[in-house]
Amino acid sequence: MSTDAPRPQLTRRRLLGAAGAGGAAGLALGAGGYALARPPASDPGATGATGAAGPALGAASVPFHGTHQAGIVEPMQSSLHATAFDLTPGTGRPGLAALLKRWSAAAAAMAEGRTPPGLTDDQVALDAGPSSLTVTFGFGASVFAKAGLAARQPAALAPLPAFPEDRLDRARSDGDLWVQVCADDPLVAFHAMRTLQRLAVGQAAPRWQMTGFSRAPGATARPMTGRNLMGQIDGTNNPKPTDADFAGRVLVPASGQPAWMAGGSYAVFRRIRMLLDVWDQQSGELQERTIGRRKRDGAPLSGGTETTPVDLAKQNPDGSLAVPGDAHVRVAAPASNQGAAMLRRGYSYHDGFRPDGAPDAGLLFVCFQADPMTGFVPVQRKLARGDALSRFVVHESSGLFAVPGGAAADGYVGQALLEG
Amino acid sequence: MSTDAPRPQLTRRRLLGAAGAGGAAGLALGAGGYALARPPASDPGATGATGAAGPALGAASVPFHGTHQAGIVEPMQSSLHATAFDLTPGTGRPGLAALLKRWSAAAAAMAEGRTPPGLTDDQVALDAGPSSLTVTFGFGASVFAKAGLAARQPAALAPLPAFPEDRLDRARSDGDLWVQVCADDPLVAFHAMRTLQRLAVGQAAPRWQMTGFSRAPGATARPMTGRNLMGQIDGTNNPKPTDADFAGRVLVPASGQPAWMAGGSYAVFRRIRMLLDVWDQQSGELQERTIGRRKRDGAPLSGGTETTPVDLAKQNPDGSLAVPGDAHVRVAAPASNQGAAMLRRGYSYHDGFRPDGAPDAGLLFVCFQADPMTGFVPVQRKLARGDALSRFVVHESSGLFAVPGGAAADGYVGQALLEG
Repeated sequence: MSTDAPRPQLTRRRLLGAAGAGGAAGLALGAGGYALARPPASDPGATGATGAAGPALGAASVPFHGTHQAGIVEPMQSSLHATAFDLTPGTGRPGLAALLKRWSAAAAAMAEGRTPPGLTDDQVALDAGPSSLTVTFGFGASVFAKAGLAARQPAALAPLPAFPEDRLDRARSDGDLWVQVCADDPLVAFHAMRTLQRLAVGQAAPRWQMTGFSRAPGATARPMTGRNLMGQIDGTNNPKPTDADFAGRVLVPASGQPAWMAGGSYAVFRRIRMLLDVWDQQSGELQERTIGRRKRDGAPLSGGTETTPVDLAKQNPDGSLAVPGDAHVRVAAPASNQGAAMLRRGYSYHDGFRPDGAPDAGLLFVCFQADPMTGFVPVQRKLARGDALSRFVVHESSGLFAVPGGAAADGYVGQALLEG
Repeated sequence: MSTDAPRPQLTRRRLLGAAGAGGAAGLALGAGGYALARPPASDPGATGATGAAGPALGAASVPFHGTHQAGIVEPMQSSLHATAFDLTPGTGRPGLAALLKRWSAAAAAMAEGRTPPGLTDDQVALDAGPSSLTVTFGFGASVFAKAGLAARQPAALAPLPAFPEDRLDRARSDGDLWVQVCADDPLVAFHAMRTLQRLAVGQAAPRWQMTGFSRAPGATARPMTGRNLMGQIDGTNNPKPTDADFAGRVLVPASGQPAWMAGGSYAVFRRIRMLLDVWDQQSGELQERTIGRRKRDGAPLSGGTETTPVDLAKQNPDGSLAVPGDAHVRVAAPASNQGAAMLRRGYSYHDGFRPDGAPDAGLLFVCFQADPMTGFVPVQRKLARGDALSRFVVHESSGLFAVPGGAAADGYVGQALLEG
């Protein structure tokens, strides 16, 4: 497989409900749906609907190599393992390059259901096949000085501004490296992350680790937008690959700066706890006015169905706004943010309950954009001030990572940074 | 549906890889496979292979009402939420009965994809259908005195003996009530547990809560035994419904004592952390000798395939035992324990990593038996002494629960205890 072989194609992976159409900002689940997807390795000639059905779910695969890293524009899988790593003291540029080489080779092998080079005990997940495994690597701002690469740090990795309502746990935020593992089988996802962690020993150690879930493939009869733990359909307004400016919003162009980020993206990762005990005490009407959509079917309060565009100007008979002024969909809408948009790919999490008895549950928010300063930042700034939903969520951790372009078949992710 | 309508039938739910044949004791994943399964509510006339395929996975259902509670003999689903509750001070027998009534009504409704009585905001999971949701209720020894039922406490609920290698965290052990929620969609499972927790407010509060996963339906092309996080195929030796003594081992007979436990079972729940960093440093050969089975295909070291009975007497050419003397399958084998056997239904867990950097991951061991003193206890006693695997696991929590028989359509779980 050569560098330019897997050209991104407009296609739709019919993966049994893992999909969803999506676009405002803030809370999201089910960012997939129509997406810029590469044909899976198991069906290299496919140009239309691709992917596995039924019992062959495990056999479905997404190639690791390509212009962009996998795990960004593909429809969401059902399991997420996200881990941030910090470099072990003494790991400089050569050690980091060696690590990314090992990681890339392992990810490429596992994406095809093969045992990673140098490992012999890789039986954990093999009998499930790759199950659409994707591995996505990112660099945090802190890695550049440590690895002697300060001069190559992207301006877009400037610290996110402090949002008024943030309650960030620094130990679960940031990190030198970020690894996003997604698969349609939770054992495959666990095993892949575990393998990468073992391959990092000596060069990098986990800083934090989180696990998320989405709707099971096949749980719904049709591809649909996901629901978050609040019960709301979420992700409807995600940018669609059919949008003329989709690639420009999500991916760094070939001419982008720094040059090593060409074909890459910037990921914002946030652990957003939901105050479900408080939320569940609200009336259904208040919940719907908080979001701006009907709970049952996701239709905007301005009318229509889930996919009907939100009519922000629509008035009720009494002259009030159909979509309230502080409704989440209004505050987050691109129309309210100079067109700012990001591709969300968030997962739910549930880690039992907290010492106070409240559920330790919510959203592992993941979004990708060409530039966080025109994607996540302006939207979140507005949400933190005026979003009715902000009373029901707590942002507990945050990270911003530079996700470079994909690797050539004979290369590795980050090569242009580390060898350029 | 009347009490005696859904007679247990020998059948096999062909649920896309959620199944597995299984039998010795100790670590297990994938206890399902051949199981005493009732026909699903969505297909009440089925007597043979039943269940959903492909996109209709979410529509598959398992009836709540019946002679036995659901979630014991059915094949495993892919998601587990287990919670222990303690009664709120002041909750006596009437309050406990009211709670079990509410819980049973809610579980019955959710098992059919309906909104529980009295709730209006149940949209979280509805569009996925019930996804084979089962809810299983159990009573811990501590509940009987609290609810004025000390005279009715089963002798079988005597505290488990202290096993030499146990490192039990009491805060995550035991509990007045135990609720096991399983479903093939993680959002359905979360939502069901959340609903039950909300319905308990005022009468009972969570004591501990754990989340587990199994192979995704459809990840493997054929029904198969699961793999645990050590990579071993596990559960092969589980009792099979085709065994003449299956029901006698797993379920309390109609003539059993106390009478209110007729049709019930006893559940042992243990959180067993795996020392994966240590395990992964062992050679594949040592791993296989520790278990007594080949890692790749689960075949016993005495030869054959996964389902070949273990030949404990088989010798290597040099006269040594083919299955080592301390191999897990030997020590746990019914033949080594006067025929003791239990039906295991365990799930993997992964809760990130511990303060020392080791993975907080392993097995949520669940087993069901007619009498723990002839099921779990003798096997675990032997394992704790002589099992080579015990060097690689830590039992962190433990609970023993009396799981009463199923509810009639106009009744509730525990009715015979609380009203008898």
